[in-house]
Amino acid sequence: MLAVYAGSFDPITFGHLDLVERATQLFPQVVVAVGHNRMRRPLFTLRERLTLLQQTCKGFHNVEVAQFDGLLIEYVKERGARVIIRGLRAGIDFEYELQMALANADLRPEIDTVFLPTRSRYGFISASMVREIASHGGDITRYAPEPVCRAMREKFAQQPDS
Amino acid sequence: MLAVYAGSFDPITFGHLDLVERATQLFPQVVVAVGHNRMRRPLFTLRERLTLLQQTCKGFHNVEVAQFDGLLIEYVKERGARVIIRGLRAGIDFEYELQMALANADLRPEIDTVFLPTRSRYGFISASMVREIASHGGDITRYAPEPVCRAMREKFAQQPDS
Amino acid sequence: MLAVYAGSFDPITFGHLDLVERATQLFPQVVVAVGHNRMRRPLFTLRERLTLLQQTCKGFHNVEVAQFDGLLIEYVKERGARVIIRGLRAGIDFEYELQMALANADLRPEIDTVFLPTRSRYGFISASMVREIASHGGDITRYAPEPVCRAMREKFAQQPDS
Amino acid sequence: MLAVYAGSFDPITFGHLDLVERATQLFPQVVVAVGHNRMRRPLFTLRERLTLLQQTCKGFHNVEVAQFDGLLIEYVKERGARVIIRGLRAGIDFEYELQMALANADLRPEIDTVFLPTRSRYGFISASMVREIASHGGDITRYAPEPVCRAMREKFAQQPDS
Amino acid sequence: MLAVYAGSFDPITFGHLDLVERATQLFPQVVVAVGHNRMRRPLFTLRERLTLLQQTCKGFHNVEVAQFDGLLIEYVKERGARVIIRGLRAGIDFEYELQMALANADLRPEIDTVFLPTRSRYGFISASMVREIASHGGDITRYAPEPVCRAMREKFAQQPDS
Amino acid sequence: MLAVYAGSFDPITFGHLDLVERATQLFPQVVVAVGHNRMRRPLFTLRERLTLLQQTCKGFHNVEVAQFDGLLIEYVKERGARVIIRGLRAGIDFEYELQMALANADLRPEIDTVFLPTRSRYGFISASMVREIASHGGDITRYAPEPVCRAMREKFAQQPDS
Repeated sequence: MLAVYAGSFDPITFGHLDLVERATQLFPQVVVAVGHNRMRRPLFTLRERLTLLQQTCKGFHNVEVAQFDGLLIEYVKERGARVIIRGLRAGIDFEYELQMALANADLRPEIDTVFLPTRSRYGFISASMVREIASHGGDITRYAPEPVCRAMREKFAQQPDS
Repeated sequence: MLAVYAGSFDPITFGHLDLVERATQLFPQVVVAVGHNRMRRPLFTLRERLTLLQQTCKGFHNVEVAQFDGLLIEYVKERGARVIIRGLRAGIDFEYELQMALANADLRPEIDTVFLPTRSRYGFISASMVREIASHGGDITRYAPEPVCRAMREKFAQQPDS
Repeated sequence: MLAVYAGSFDPITFGHLDLVERATQLFPQVVVAVGHNRMRRPLFTLRERLTLLQQTCKGFHNVEVAQFDGLLIEYVKERGARVIIRGLRAGIDFEYELQMALANADLRPEIDTVFLPTRSRYGFISASMVREIASHGGDITRYAPEPVCRAMREKFAQQPDS
Repeated sequence: MLAVYAGSFDPITFGHLDLVERATQLFPQVVVAVGHNRMRRPLFTLRERLTLLQQTCKGFHNVEVAQFDGLLIEYVKERGARVIIRGLRAGIDFEYELQMALANADLRPEIDTVFLPTRSRYGFISASMVREIASHGGDITRYAPEPVCRAMREKFAQQPDS
Repeated sequence: MLAVYAGSFDPITFGHLDLVERATQLFPQVVVAVGHNRMRRPLFTLRERLTLLQQTCKGFHNVEVAQFDGLLIEYVKERGARVIIRGLRAGIDFEYELQMALANADLRPEIDTVFLPTRSRYGFISASMVREIASHGGDITRYAPEPVCRAMREKFAQQPDS
Repeated sequence: MLAVYAGSFDPITFGHLDLVERATQLFPQVVVAVGHNRMRRPLFTLRERLTLLQQTCKGFHNVEVAQFDGLLIEYVKERGARVIIRGLRAGIDFEYELQMALANADLRPEIDTVFLPTRSRYGFISASMVREIASHGGDITRYAPEPVCRAMREKFAQQPDS
């Protein structure tokens, strides 16, 4: 059974990685998928985010890193996957997550959404928090894997005045 | 007694229409009012949204479609209305809704806000979800009335690469 | 159109009374209904609560005080009412309220639930808070009408050791 | 991989059954487990609830109905299961659910909690609502399977005055 | 300035202790106060809870352990304290906490309520969870200080069949 | 002990001022700090907001108005402060606030976050609401101090068509 864990991963954090690991234990094959999002401006380009995901997920033998365009639910169907994986943190908008899951169940009833709670030691870590700390030169090594920390240093070295 | 059901209706969905119908049964006269909003960029222009509202609400004899500029609470007062109607879904920010109702009650105590719960079969339908599905070429006929489906097809036919 | 505002009213507070007043302005006829509840132990008996409601609601010409047994939604139907009125406060369990409204809409689609936000100056007043303050001999005159204050004094004079 | 879906199932509803069905599609083997709960007074005895579960779950070839005593997380471990399944509805106390999942992850990190959203057509159905409607002689056939409806009629026929 | 941290402390956990420690750093003098609560049945008697608090708080030179009867806000006033301290966890009913703080501010405007967030490593620990784990013979040494663990063992050794 | 009350104060409202006043009673010295925020577009420039804060806070002898750049938690550390003050309203995103406090506690464990509930008569007042009412020519004298009302009139007199 194929499961898809989708997100913007801008950048991937230890919280995301913990979820990837647990997903690989629950499902035989896991796709970690980055979506094109036309509206928002990410800090890392799609290419950069894919590279960071590949570097940090290479230890998992049953993980594939991929990108998708369009509706997530249609991508999941095209891949022949049966499951969408979502992380649950205290800080997220739970009602919005539930609404999206219900909409997806209405569009494709054969695909299920599975929520995994973020472990408490990662519960306060979000990609936006990691971006904000790094943008001010703060230390993010407790929150994100090494390739992300390095990419962040390079990113903000390029933008000395931002 | 005149009641105002205001929103951005970008576009009107079956969830909105269900609320319009129920409002017409509770109050003798209902104004469905689209606000000018200077900040956000709607998918449909004000003119397009008014046309879609008129097409989809024409079956209700006690509904008037209108636009307003400025504060909703002042528009409600100018119209001599006594009631603001708001929809309540599980996915909405209920606390924000409550705060707005309290602020309006402070500005104009003679006008009341009435919340109607969205029926469960429409509970996961939002205008933004409908826009997103349609923008990817998905099927929205279960979520929005026919004139909206047609307008969506024309809208995205105009933007083949967006 | 008949509307039913139901509750346990143990006892009626200024928050409840504010809602009764606004309901009388929105609907031609309002029933304030106290339910028999077999499970919980109220502070005031059903008879006492009905008496307090009659004393405090007698100024409204279009209010009837009543009691009901069984399911609220069935009582509303038997009375030929079209509307259930519920108060919304920041402190309430909004999701539970929404769930009950959806269940009632499923049982009797022709009856609608209307939520009215409690005014901010009453937003923190609940019957349980009034009971607790009064049980410790505190002053409740800012939170509940005079007949309730008097009944509370008598109630706790009878139970010196509780 | 063994998954445990635990609850009080007092009684089992169509909402529970939908979750059982989806769990059987996600995991090879599913235990539906009723806990002894010393504190609360259920409507149906443990024996009755087990019988109703067996009658309504017999169509699933990979479901076992069981009871457990003590902490759920310890029962899950003893069974050699890897997953706890929980349903997510708009009406539930999501933060409490998250807290329990975190506590269980702290006690037994090798066991994961998986949340499945209740489908929208079952979202407002709870066992307590079904009990309340049935206790007043209301119709519950849309909310619970036939053996439950029959058991309810017998239960309340035994208690004509309750 | 005197601050009061009140609760039922049935029993005191590491989460409570963390709050006591932080309170002692913010305020010159802290009263940890256990309330008589006529309605609920605690696991530990008032005397036992006071003893456990004294044993676990004796390391703080500016902490006094006390009991109170009646309304907390009146006790705070009698003590001449200016501050009520409350812990905030993801799992608590935040809106209820806010409502109580507003009611207390209305009763005694000169007394303020201060909320301290529970640290993430204690965020999922509640006294009820500790009671439940201990009642099933589980290990609570990660969640509660040593005197509590010992008292729990004695408590449940006395009740072999409960 | 130094406490920092940070925000965008765009503009300062009576709700903010109430918090400043209470903070000055709890802590010996209070810094009201406006952050540079590169992303959002404020209505008032940083300079204007600082001036309005100075005009409205000048009555408090132990308040300093300041600006900061970068991460709040680092600014708090540089100032040698021990406490971050945050306001809690029913309308805010409490879970987000809690997450930020936990992240800050992780970055600098020696600095604590203290939440103060907004008094009920200010509970529905937000800076964005004040901006919206003023932008439509509405009366904000009940929600913001006199210098803000004057600055708003001048601001919108400059932008007749916005």
